[in-house]
Amino acid sequence: MTWQRYCDYLTGVSSVGLTLDISRMNFTDAWLEEMEPRMQKAFSDMAELERGSVANRDEGRMVGHYWLRAPEIAPLGLGPEIEATLAAVKKFTAGVHAARHYTDVLCIGIGGSALGPMFIADALGHPCTDKLRPWFLDNTDPDGIARVLAQLHGRLERTLTVVISKSGGTPETANGMALVENAYCNCGLDFARHAVAITMHGSILDRKAIAENWKGRFEMFDWIGGRTSEMSAVGLLLAALQGLDIDGLLEGARLVDAATRHPVTRSNPAAMMALMWHAATNGRGERDMVILPYKDRLLLFSRYLQQLIMESLGKRLDLDGKVVEQGIAVYGNKGSTDQHAYVQQLRDGIDNFFVVFIRVLEDGGSRLELSPGVRTGDYLDGFYLGTREALTGNCRQSMTISVPRVDARTAGALIALFERAVGLYANLVNINAYHQPGVQAGKTAATGVLELQAALLAALSDEPQTPAELAAGDSEETAYLVLEHLAANGRVRKTGDSPSASKYSRVPN
Amino acid sequence: MTWQRYCDYLTGVSSVGLTLDISRMNFTDAWLEEMEPRMQKAFSDMAELERGSVANRDEGRMVGHYWLRAPEIAPLGLGPEIEATLAAVKKFTAGVHAARHYTDVLCIGIGGSALGPMFIADALGHPCTDKLRPWFLDNTDPDGIARVLAQLHGRLERTLTVVISKSGGTPETANGMALVENAYCNCGLDFARHAVAITMHGSILDRKAIAENWKGRFEMFDWIGGRTSEMSAVGLLLAALQGLDIDGLLEGARLVDAATRHPVTRSNPAAMMALMWHAATNGRGERDMVILPYKDRLLLFSRYLQQLIMESLGKRLDLDGKVVEQGIAVYGNKGSTDQHAYVQQLRDGIDNFFVVFIRVLEDGGSRLELSPGVRTGDYLDGFYLGTREALTGNCRQSMTISVPRVDARTAGALIALFERAVGLYANLVNINAYHQPGVQAGKTAATGVLELQAALLAALSDEPQTPAELAAGDSEETAYLVLEHLAANGRVRKTGDSPSASKYSRVPN
Repeated sequence: MTWQRYCDYLTGVSSVGLTLDISRMNFTDAWLEEMEPRMQKAFSDMAELERGSVANRDEGRMVGHYWLRAPEIAPLGLGPEIEATLAAVKKFTAGVHAARHYTDVLCIGIGGSALGPMFIADALGHPCTDKLRPWFLDNTDPDGIARVLAQLHGRLERTLTVVISKSGGTPETANGMALVENAYCNCGLDFARHAVAITMHGSILDRKAIAENWKGRFEMFDWIGGRTSEMSAVGLLLAALQGLDIDGLLEGARLVDAATRHPVTRSNPAAMMALMWHAATNGRGERDMVILPYKDRLLLFSRYLQQLIMESLGKRLDLDGKVVEQGIAVYGNKGSTDQHAYVQQLRDGIDNFFVVFIRVLEDGGSRLELSPGVRTGDYLDGFYLGTREALTGNCRQSMTISVPRVDARTAGALIALFERAVGLYANLVNINAYHQPGVQAGKTAATGVLELQAALLAALSDEPQTPAELAAGDSEETAYLVLEHLAANGRVRKTGDSPSASKYSRVPN
Repeated sequence: MTWQRYCDYLTGVSSVGLTLDISRMNFTDAWLEEMEPRMQKAFSDMAELERGSVANRDEGRMVGHYWLRAPEIAPLGLGPEIEATLAAVKKFTAGVHAARHYTDVLCIGIGGSALGPMFIADALGHPCTDKLRPWFLDNTDPDGIARVLAQLHGRLERTLTVVISKSGGTPETANGMALVENAYCNCGLDFARHAVAITMHGSILDRKAIAENWKGRFEMFDWIGGRTSEMSAVGLLLAALQGLDIDGLLEGARLVDAATRHPVTRSNPAAMMALMWHAATNGRGERDMVILPYKDRLLLFSRYLQQLIMESLGKRLDLDGKVVEQGIAVYGNKGSTDQHAYVQQLRDGIDNFFVVFIRVLEDGGSRLELSPGVRTGDYLDGFYLGTREALTGNCRQSMTISVPRVDARTAGALIALFERAVGLYANLVNINAYHQPGVQAGKTAATGVLELQAALLAALSDEPQTPAELAAGDSEETAYLVLEHLAANGRVRKTGDSPSASKYSRVPN
């Protein structure tokens, strides 16, 4: 019964050895048939997208991540640009490797400019054999930045710094760059001689890199979104510098692309995965997606997918302007580790999730037998099978993506599979997967906070004043919170204990 | 209006500078009053627990993590045991530090024996100043284990290995230990001379450590659960070896314990937090909890809390044996990084969550001004305030825990705050927070898989056979999946392409 269902619905991409097993999800053939016209529309719109339609209508942009691994299908003569950038990445990398000067590479970026590179660096890298050792600054936390820079102390001269920002103006990235530039300068080093920019032509970062004659500049294309930029220069440069197989990465993605643009739903793993997401969440995000790869190297995949899926699907309006408040929450780390953390809840507790297991068939590592015929990898796979079974036993849904091993090809394949599934699912629920309008609100509010901080600092005097007095009409609560932060860092003097009794004055020079 | 609400409901523990702001959560005074009798019952049951009642009834165990930081209140004369273990940790550590032999410490453990130590090691450690460098094996992935061991190559003689397992029989931990022991042996080193066990007296691990005369042995108390063991030897030994301030950790927790066992709901931050969880999730886990600390050092706190909260609350039955399928899903990484990942969905998408922000007032790191009066830490705090405001603007709920800095005291305080909130919340929804009956099902199923594997390996012959033939009555599907794993690792020979056409035979010698 389960065996028949397993065989009936197994799909995959045989050229990369990837399979998708959906037999433990709740759906019927009748429902699949009912969804078929919508899936055909999704295929058709996807084909338009790949032909260069302005699929991200709100931003008036094309959506071109599939072209990155198949430049020959790119429209409008974009193919040569893609090929030129890839060639430039390889040439630059070959030069760096040949010179044998650099030992470390520091990436400064956030969101789509960090999550892909971090995932790939950890999934495919090896600290003992990487050609350059990768480091990341992905925040504007001065303490976090200091901790990374401390580890590069004395090695900055041998550290290449790659600054990644599509717009060139991402504050976290700009701030990280400012501190790093300062650190090079404090060592008597010329930052520009060690710096590489990945950004859109003409951005503020691009202009800085040109003006200062940086060591390298690579283009981020307008038609590539941050969360689908791993196979642009954003992801490829770091991977190549680290010594990873970027051709394999592109090849794996290209093979999955070829298989998943094929408009036959039943044999298309991306389409079947999108349908399962729909079935499990009622097309409204009513269940969370738990990503559970049974392989340490895939630990960061769930963080990568959090962005890809939640930023793509978490939308207020549908394409007709109707309020829909869509999305699917994503979390997870790795198995079997997470079995000792939260699988208790998955098995016994609230049924508000479905699991996407990722199974890796080849064990790698030591073949030591723990007892006759039993190795550590048998336990890992046994725990996967056992947990899958235990979840089914309590009517909890799961599906399984299986790959032969974690290498560049399968990593590219996994990324491409989810990219396609996200695009198809977004079409099924009629939303734009390619913009992120909600991110602006927080940034705008933060800008207001920094303006308020400037006003508060200017309004301080030797006389203690209340937040309300200093705020002069702005939010008293926000003023108080900003003043507390300034006081904690010795930048204003505070008297009074409770929020309502607090007063602030200038710090004497 | 918001300011008044902020002031009215602010609670905290002033001795550690911790505050909890719940003003952006949806609740009314009338609801708080309605809940008050249930909260008083929770306080009363918690007092019983602290006095030594068998609060984990299903396992017939006391629940003693609060005693770890206040041995004087431990019942039944357990105080001296706690003090003796702490003294032993300090003495052992002092000896290791004084000898200046060891440079690295490798922890082998999983779940409650890894998540707390990993969180504290990252939150409080510094790669440049740690007395010993911490490493972790928290899985039975042979490739993952090999990658860690490769980095310790040539340094095993200077690596202390700590094996942590309460029962002593956790397979992932036992397997990791077997490979590590093998690695020491391959270097001509005596593993026992470098090994320390943390386990219950009399466990299989304890007996091994005694028989082989290991370098150290520390007790894991029967009345401490894995997910609340950070302030037992489990967490303290590694932290002490790393050079962290374990007295501060205990002191921070002790101060929060003192404040949060006080049965005045309105001034008790753990009680108010538990009530907010209830208000947001309708006491049934109807919203996920998103943990967003604005500080790189707190990145792993959400993984720690995933276990503490989901394994404690994710329960099928309530204390009366009624099926309730409880729980609260927990995820999150760090701000402002996550603003560039999934905050799009939080702000605009499905309203199925509430956020617990963690704000750290002191910036640390560089004080470099990016523009006059503006530092990187101002952006970090500005992004927190901006995102909080943007969420409120779309009626999304959040609360904020604020601490002055990340140090041993505040880390201990944060752990104690959540431990208490989990205990109180579990009481409000009438479940046992201290057992994990659902974990067994997966383990049992995994054991069955390993038995099936042995049977399959024994049944193989030179003649290709189908999974059904080899399984001899066991699940055909499971047999196929196990055989695929064996085939991928060269341990059986496979013919046929599709699942239904696959046959397997013995690998010729």
